[in-house]
Amino acid sequence: MTASAQPETLQSRVRRLIETRIFDRAIIAVIVVNALGLGMETSPAIMASYGDIVGLLDRIAIAIFVVELALKLFAYRFAFFRNGWNVFDLLIVSAALVPASREFSVLRALRILRALRLISVVPSMRRVIVGLFSAIPSIGTVIVMLLLLFYISAVMATKLFGAAFPEWFGTLGASLYSLFQIMTLESWSMGIVRPVMEVFPCAWAFFVPFILVTSFIVLNLFIGVIVNAMSEATDEEAHDEREEILRELRGLRDDIGKLRAAADRGD
Amino acid sequence: MTASAQPETLQSRVRRLIETRIFDRAIIAVIVVNALGLGMETSPAIMASYGDIVGLLDRIAIAIFVVELALKLFAYRFAFFRNGWNVFDLLIVSAALVPASREFSVLRALRILRALRLISVVPSMRRVIVGLFSAIPSIGTVIVMLLLLFYISAVMATKLFGAAFPEWFGTLGASLYSLFQIMTLESWSMGIVRPVMEVFPCAWAFFVPFILVTSFIVLNLFIGVIVNAMSEATDEEAHDEREEILRELRGLRDDIGKLRAAADRGD
Amino acid sequence: MTASAQPETLQSRVRRLIETRIFDRAIIAVIVVNALGLGMETSPAIMASYGDIVGLLDRIAIAIFVVELALKLFAYRFAFFRNGWNVFDLLIVSAALVPASREFSVLRALRILRALRLISVVPSMRRVIVGLFSAIPSIGTVIVMLLLLFYISAVMATKLFGAAFPEWFGTLGASLYSLFQIMTLESWSMGIVRPVMEVFPCAWAFFVPFILVTSFIVLNLFIGVIVNAMSEATDEEAHDEREEILRELRGLRDDIGKLRAAADRGD
Amino acid sequence: MTASAQPETLQSRVRRLIETRIFDRAIIAVIVVNALGLGMETSPAIMASYGDIVGLLDRIAIAIFVVELALKLFAYRFAFFRNGWNVFDLLIVSAALVPASREFSVLRALRILRALRLISVVPSMRRVIVGLFSAIPSIGTVIVMLLLLFYISAVMATKLFGAAFPEWFGTLGASLYSLFQIMTLESWSMGIVRPVMEVFPCAWAFFVPFILVTSFIVLNLFIGVIVNAMSEATDEEAHDEREEILRELRGLRDDIGKLRAAADRGD
Repeated sequence: MTASAQPETLQSRVRRLIETRIFDRAIIAVIVVNALGLGMETSPAIMASYGDIVGLLDRIAIAIFVVELALKLFAYRFAFFRNGWNVFDLLIVSAALVPASREFSVLRALRILRALRLISVVPSMRRVIVGLFSAIPSIGTVIVMLLLLFYISAVMATKLFGAAFPEWFGTLGASLYSLFQIMTLESWSMGIVRPVMEVFPCAWAFFVPFILVTSFIVLNLFIGVIVNAMSEATDEEAHDEREEILRELRGLRDDIGKLRAAADRGD
Repeated sequence: MTASAQPETLQSRVRRLIETRIFDRAIIAVIVVNALGLGMETSPAIMASYGDIVGLLDRIAIAIFVVELALKLFAYRFAFFRNGWNVFDLLIVSAALVPASREFSVLRALRILRALRLISVVPSMRRVIVGLFSAIPSIGTVIVMLLLLFYISAVMATKLFGAAFPEWFGTLGASLYSLFQIMTLESWSMGIVRPVMEVFPCAWAFFVPFILVTSFIVLNLFIGVIVNAMSEATDEEAHDEREEILRELRGLRDDIGKLRAAADRGD
Repeated sequence: MTASAQPETLQSRVRRLIETRIFDRAIIAVIVVNALGLGMETSPAIMASYGDIVGLLDRIAIAIFVVELALKLFAYRFAFFRNGWNVFDLLIVSAALVPASREFSVLRALRILRALRLISVVPSMRRVIVGLFSAIPSIGTVIVMLLLLFYISAVMATKLFGAAFPEWFGTLGASLYSLFQIMTLESWSMGIVRPVMEVFPCAWAFFVPFILVTSFIVLNLFIGVIVNAMSEATDEEAHDEREEILRELRGLRDDIGKLRAAADRGD
Repeated sequence: MTASAQPETLQSRVRRLIETRIFDRAIIAVIVVNALGLGMETSPAIMASYGDIVGLLDRIAIAIFVVELALKLFAYRFAFFRNGWNVFDLLIVSAALVPASREFSVLRALRILRALRLISVVPSMRRVIVGLFSAIPSIGTVIVMLLLLFYISAVMATKLFGAAFPEWFGTLGASLYSLFQIMTLESWSMGIVRPVMEVFPCAWAFFVPFILVTSFIVLNLFIGVIVNAMSEATDEEAHDEREEILRELRGLRDDIGKLRAAADRGD
């Protein structure tokens, strides 16, 4: 890359390059190959034979990602940060650069999160995510109420059953986890409530209402999302047709107005 | 607070005070702090170091709630009781005053229910609850039918399987609980029905239809709620547009009527 | 009841009697009291003290039901059988008369089914049931496909896993039951598929697609019911408004037609 | 069947034959009888007494299917392959001819898949399947995202928990299966996550978000299918009515146009 007398030209050239479809597709290919490579790392058999190549491919992929983001930063300057997806990419790629020590296995496991970049690169996936988030405002209050219910129930469960069942309700955290399990209906009766009822025979009076109320709130969460999606999807066409009817009606009124003007003239 | 010559003025002043946004926010803050404090009570480590402060905060919070409700009672008089949310607040706060004896742990655990006051204070949560209750009339009959089905099935299960499986179906109450567990599909087969089928090989002919029918009724409950929510949400805009079309049409008819009058005059 | 000279008058009198609201309410009261009595029979403690009264009440209730149906038969003659709900009542009540032998506990347990008569007597419940059945035509094909899928999967499971796991897949019936359990997702993996995979490592290739396909078909069943309910509920008002728009438009056309006729005359 | 001088006539005759309703019904009958026969094969008792007849019926059914497809191939020539259902039938029937060796039990078990031909022969079932597939484009991206999430989570789970829990997360395949089980909420907590949390106390921070995110994506899958089905079902009638309103309006405009022309002439 030779230095250019006109830096603007170089910047706009780079911008044109990274906005080509072929650039996007190359990045998608690198993401997919990198994700497959990280998947291969889980197989000791493959790593024993091809470990060097897999490791090399991983380093190449990171290098490509770094160059890609550097080009984007150079092309868009501060506008780069205004696009949330770029920030998302930057965080994921820079996270890949942090774990210098090869021992810290959790950070190594997080490297596969780079495959999430696929979402930020493929437009149709981006739209799905934006759609998911657009439903959140309409269900925000219901989520807060669900969290409130969880907090209240966890405090009560800890005070009531914590002493007798420390593994399930010993601390606020343990109670929150157990209540989440109960909300998903997993082993709620045979695993948790029946044993608790052997000590506290009335425990059902706490857990059955909890299940009913959380189910009803979750149902309302679902309905919030469904109503949001439906009203967007089905109404648009009908709205357009009604708009056309109104346009047609206004045209008619104009025609009749002219007719009256003509009649007035004719008088 | 000095005594006033005009008691009406004091009452309306108090009313203005408790209707300010700052008053509402202060109460919300007290509720949140109180709920966090009650949560801290579940941790023996925190209670060992800061137990005194947490207990003091709790007593202060109750005092604030009592003053708040006293002010509201003074400001609105009997109108106070016409608002269901006020009655709800009164019940919750006065429940906090009852448990004089510190031994009765269930009542102590119920103190966290005060956090539910958040719902009665935050308008958007209040609206969600009102919305939930507005769905009940349209699903009331279905709920009664579900209860009827539960009662009939519990009586049958108690008579059929009660002698052989007293833990699950020994009494009407035990059967109702077990059938609720089966309705939630939790361990219904491996935990309950397969052991029962070892004694009564045809027990599936009771439980499988029970699961199918309750699932279908619960589905209808859900649909009742969904249809209720949808018809409110999506139809309003379309209805407004159709209203505008009708208004436009009536304007047209007037125009044509005038035209005919003019033509008649012209004759 | 004295013999009447005009038998038609007696018949129409009886008809008027059984169509009064008080008659319906009395029958509802008898059904509820009878159902509560049959519930009390499940408690040995109550039966020890009040067994005679409970048994007497049961016999009185049956007697009232028999008289009620006899009156209806007398009042409507053959038209009685044209109403499905009457046939339903007749079956349930006559079933109560069959079990002469007090030993046959299954038939005794079935007596509580009489409480289902509540559905045939209360109009709003009747409407819910009719609504449920009205959804069936639109989902009939999907139900047949689900049954077909179950049959095919049961035959395959019996042939593949029957020899190794006779308890779960030994016969076609056992396989159908186990597949139903798997469809409800109850202990499908830990309870059934993981043990099977220890013998047949590829068993997941049978069960995972089975779960996915049945879930998708059941989802379509639900959607069939929802779409059915929604299109009935939401469209009616909009349809009426569109009808009014059309009426308005046709009125306008008439007006303009008259205007043209006047203009022609004016020519 | 005698040879014909005009081969076209024979072809069109065959085509007319296989397009009669009686031909379709005969094939349906053969499919049903064949499916029942294959079901009987699962019962050793029936096979001991009637094994020969059942086997003979199976061979007759295959012969009929082969003749049927040969006739269709003869009648439609290459157009036969343009209809996907014909290709489906051909694959299923030819699969039945492959397993010469009677030992290979998996292939023998697959013979019952022939009953799926019912779907390709009964038009209403064909429509349901076409409807199911028509929903796929609108949910394709969401499915790809779900698969991406599964892949990423499986790689992470294998790296994090594979060494300590080889049975559940030892390989990528084992992790995918375990995560599918967790997504269906089957024994996710008592069976998998609680034991894992005894070794890795923070494992809930991986599994709880996984459950929340997959539930939300599956909910969006459902909504995609529901919105698809609803917008087709409910809008058609309303659309027709709006079309009629527009037609009516255009008729009015023509009338007014003629009126203006008459008025202009009258001037």
